[in-house]
Amino acid sequence: MAKLPGHIEWIGDGGSGYLRFLDQTKLPGDIVYIDCKSVETVWQAIKRLSVRGAPAIGIAAAYGCVIGAQYGRFAGAADYLATSRPTAVNLFWAIERMKLLGSEKPADLLAEAKAIHEEDARMCRAIGEHGVDLIGDGAGVLTHCNAGALATGGIGTATAPMYLAHERGRRFTVFADETRPLLQGARLTAWELQQAGVDVTLICDDMAARVMGEGRVKLVITGADRIAANGDAANKIGTYGLAVLAKYHGIPFYVAAPSSTFDLSLPGGQDIPIEQRDPGEIINGFGTPTAPEKIKTYNPAFDVTPRELIAGLITEKGIISPVNAETVMEMIGGVGPSLNG
Amino acid sequence: MAKLPGHIEWIGDGGSGYLRFLDQTKLPGDIVYIDCKSVETVWQAIKRLSVRGAPAIGIAAAYGCVIGAQYGRFAGAADYLATSRPTAVNLFWAIERMKLLGSEKPADLLAEAKAIHEEDARMCRAIGEHGVDLIGDGAGVLTHCNAGALATGGIGTATAPMYLAHERGRRFTVFADETRPLLQGARLTAWELQQAGVDVTLICDDMAARVMGEGRVKLVITGADRIAANGDAANKIGTYGLAVLAKYHGIPFYVAAPSSTFDLSLPGGQDIPIEQRDPGEIINGFGTPTAPEKIKTYNPAFDVTPRELIAGLITEKGIISPVNAETVMEMIGGVGPSLNG
Repeated sequence: MAKLPGHIEWIGDGGSGYLRFLDQTKLPGDIVYIDCKSVETVWQAIKRLSVRGAPAIGIAAAYGCVIGAQYGRFAGAADYLATSRPTAVNLFWAIERMKLLGSEKPADLLAEAKAIHEEDARMCRAIGEHGVDLIGDGAGVLTHCNAGALATGGIGTATAPMYLAHERGRRFTVFADETRPLLQGARLTAWELQQAGVDVTLICDDMAARVMGEGRVKLVITGADRIAANGDAANKIGTYGLAVLAKYHGIPFYVAAPSSTFDLSLPGGQDIPIEQRDPGEIINGFGTPTAPEKIKTYNPAFDVTPRELIAGLITEKGIISPVNAETVMEMIGGVGPSLNG
Repeated sequence: MAKLPGHIEWIGDGGSGYLRFLDQTKLPGDIVYIDCKSVETVWQAIKRLSVRGAPAIGIAAAYGCVIGAQYGRFAGAADYLATSRPTAVNLFWAIERMKLLGSEKPADLLAEAKAIHEEDARMCRAIGEHGVDLIGDGAGVLTHCNAGALATGGIGTATAPMYLAHERGRRFTVFADETRPLLQGARLTAWELQQAGVDVTLICDDMAARVMGEGRVKLVITGADRIAANGDAANKIGTYGLAVLAKYHGIPFYVAAPSSTFDLSLPGGQDIPIEQRDPGEIINGFGTPTAPEKIKTYNPAFDVTPRELIAGLITEKGIISPVNAETVMEMIGGVGPSLNG
């Protein structure tokens, strides 16, 4: 099991404590922790992806609200942190939940942030329990980006079934897409699965179709950053293409996400805002220029996979399948973030 | 027009001349020429992709044979050069043609190598003429890897219709996939189209599906390294996935290649040997480690697109469409490399 203790954790008490997390932009080369004692540092850490992954962003923002409260600025901090990234709904969900607590005392807010964190860890495990039997002995499982332990407060979302299958001694191989431009698959997923002893093979994104065509992949599982009421799922750029490829090859494509990822206020995926990121990530992403100067780029951070391409949504409550507005409402209705707001 | 004079050229006469080419591994940062005065340097240059692209490899190998002949070792040089890379059939085709000349005099062989080079330039232009009207005003054209001027002795294969459309004043945008692991799209295609004044937007490979889904792409054109008798086409890894994505989005997918790329001795694409390349290209491709140490990788350099996914094969003789064994034989029969052998 990948425990990764403390990849995101609160040090000390509510009054004078602070948030510490592993700087994911430095992995796998360096293990560097960042201590956040101001709301600004938390905002920056989320913005520049030092902490990333929809559930982990929510957890970091919740702790960030505690820091705001330490300075007597809870409400301002909450609103400010909500501007750090536009796509991951867990961010807004966690901040909303902190607001709903109705207290601005750091100790109370810390207890709530820790509850969010611990619930996330339990949700990851529940997702794993629901998904583990999708991974048969000898299976090849393909994943994209990092919806792993590093992206959550627990054993990840897409990776949760993998960690549990590994724990139960099943033999299987994970193909991890490197996930350009920021290489979360190469730097994070390959790293954490390798640390946990899971058999993992790294490929470039444009190799997935061939690996599927060779019959090496029995299952695709990715995470999600936001899921609309009809089941359309926004996730890291490249996910939609994988879903199309999986469909063509007759391979089931699953999305794993806790119910906090659902945004029932959005009827369909076309309404999910998609963050556009800096051209530098494409043309100079490795500290070396990899493209001509002044070249035009297009750099959407996410894409939306329509529900028709998704075999099932693996949540902590069970697998939603087939995926449509009715089945989503049946499983998630009443817990989605918009209904808490 | 991208002329790129001398990106591959013979300097001097047959007896004491040598091969000079632009080192494509240094682009776009540095413009460095390599002078090859031994067969070994030519072999190395092909192997490590300093010269790459199926037609350009054939041209370089032909000139390499002249260098062998200067040392009285034509036959040995020819056989040795044929081992430099396994997938591009133009390599074997060019070497075979040099052998068929029946002379081992450097001057004779140089004339033949120059003929191969000049014919290639004419073929590129003919491919452009046949393909140019596929690019309507306002079109978005997506391409992968570099089947451009740099890959040939002329204006490229996949790029030839683009250069001619540009020459004729049509307004269109090219989306260039960066093409991991070696980034030929970012480093070479984006560079040469930018040099020529063609409007080009660089994307990561995993963004192609979204760009297609947004309706920005009316046409995909790639090159090929080897085309089987039934029209199945081997090309840079990632091409097959693009063809699947194009099919899903109802976008016509074309392959542009001269007839020397056809290998009529192979009935179908499953018989095309696929080069596996070094893991270092994936985990340390930019001079920086981008993945954990000792991670397993899978690094096929090419994939095979089945004919069903190809709307047409744009050759110097015309567009083969629909693509099947009969239509290929009708257009190419009698000129494929296997029939010359």
